[in-house]
Amino acid sequence: MDSNIIRAKIRLFVEQALGQGQEIALSQAHAHYLGNVLRKGTGAQIALFNNRDGEWLAELTEVGRRGAQAVCLGQSAPQRMPPDLWLVFAPIKKARTDFIVEKAAELGAARIVPVQTEFTNSERIRQDRLQAHAVEAAEQCGGTYVPEVADLQPLSRLLQDWPEGRALIWADEGLAETVSTAPLPAAPAAILIGPEGGFSQAERARLRGMAQVRPIALGPRILRADTAAVAALTLWQNAQGDWG
Amino acid sequence: MDSNIIRAKIRLFVEQALGQGQEIALSQAHAHYLGNVLRKGTGAQIALFNNRDGEWLAELTEVGRRGAQAVCLGQSAPQRMPPDLWLVFAPIKKARTDFIVEKAAELGAARIVPVQTEFTNSERIRQDRLQAHAVEAAEQCGGTYVPEVADLQPLSRLLQDWPEGRALIWADEGLAETVSTAPLPAAPAAILIGPEGGFSQAERARLRGMAQVRPIALGPRILRADTAAVAALTLWQNAQGDWG
Repeated sequence: MDSNIIRAKIRLFVEQALGQGQEIALSQAHAHYLGNVLRKGTGAQIALFNNRDGEWLAELTEVGRRGAQAVCLGQSAPQRMPPDLWLVFAPIKKARTDFIVEKAAELGAARIVPVQTEFTNSERIRQDRLQAHAVEAAEQCGGTYVPEVADLQPLSRLLQDWPEGRALIWADEGLAETVSTAPLPAAPAAILIGPEGGFSQAERARLRGMAQVRPIALGPRILRADTAAVAALTLWQNAQGDWG
Repeated sequence: MDSNIIRAKIRLFVEQALGQGQEIALSQAHAHYLGNVLRKGTGAQIALFNNRDGEWLAELTEVGRRGAQAVCLGQSAPQRMPPDLWLVFAPIKKARTDFIVEKAAELGAARIVPVQTEFTNSERIRQDRLQAHAVEAAEQCGGTYVPEVADLQPLSRLLQDWPEGRALIWADEGLAETVSTAPLPAAPAAILIGPEGGFSQAERARLRGMAQVRPIALGPRILRADTAAVAALTLWQNAQGDWG
């Protein structure tokens, strides 16, 4: 990384490889955003990142109706991978689901896994729309990594295949008094946030029976699912993640 | 508190004193919500709280167009005051400002103080609307306390009169590397969250010069103001508040 390279304010996530002198063909959507929304033209500087090559300062060499071109001038920030933390959550109302995905990307989750539980209201999600929210949040927060948003899957199936070595931190509103005060488990880990109606008795029994599960309490008030997601991600990042 | 008393799911904040056998005149808005939205009538049970007498189970004795009446049957939860923590923040876009107020109430802030900074976009706020959001969040989260939302005031004036004994925890995105890892200051305390554009040089100098100010960092990514508010409230409640 060249310390003389400034960091541009406009940041875009791209799929292509980034490197010195590399020419990048930007999508029509990016061209529209740069040219029509931000009114940027040839010569304007932007930052690009792609989940593996860090952040690169690039200069626009062409902005047109069908796309735009940029050339990489130098690396402006190193690649920074988030800790190996997943957020597993039951989708709720649209605005709050969008919010959870945005916050998980900002707070440095590595992977976002929407699950269907017995009390989940959503039969389906728009994975592509949620993934776009994660991209936008990563562009906004100065990160160099966009967490993958997985497809919606039943919680039961996810638990069946749960990796032996991955702790599952369960924000369980019903267990406040029996919760350990030991430090949160280190990575690899996942945070599990239930739907507004909580988990069913069968789901609770299943979770209680798993060796990887660690229940945590999030204070004396009942938090909404979106608040619980942000609070649990914060506590984990502060204790075991990259906030140190 | 009578341990045989159940907790009703419908919770309403009222101004009146609550006590055994007390008759409560509910507002027209409450009557509309109970009768027309929730379709509740005479005999339905609700929970009432008022910031001082705990939560009371009450039975509706009348639901009409102009108001409703209830009678207190017994206390269903003790009064629980939040720790003495303020959230001081610069209002941003409407939806995110609403969100910050909702989350501060859920996470147990005692007082919410919107401030105008040099880079704040909002010239004014609807204090009554924000206060209503705080009420709704307290009703929803099972708490017995609604934080007061103060009127918008200039940050400079707030700092001028800042109480000597109240720590001001400043989530400062520019100071990540110089931040202490000592425990967060105990109550009385306040958390200060800046606007999206950050604080001005003059504001930063002013804050750095105050003995009560304690800068904190919230990880390597730049958090939006609403995320920073939830993250900082979480860390404080976990370290010094009522999540222990």
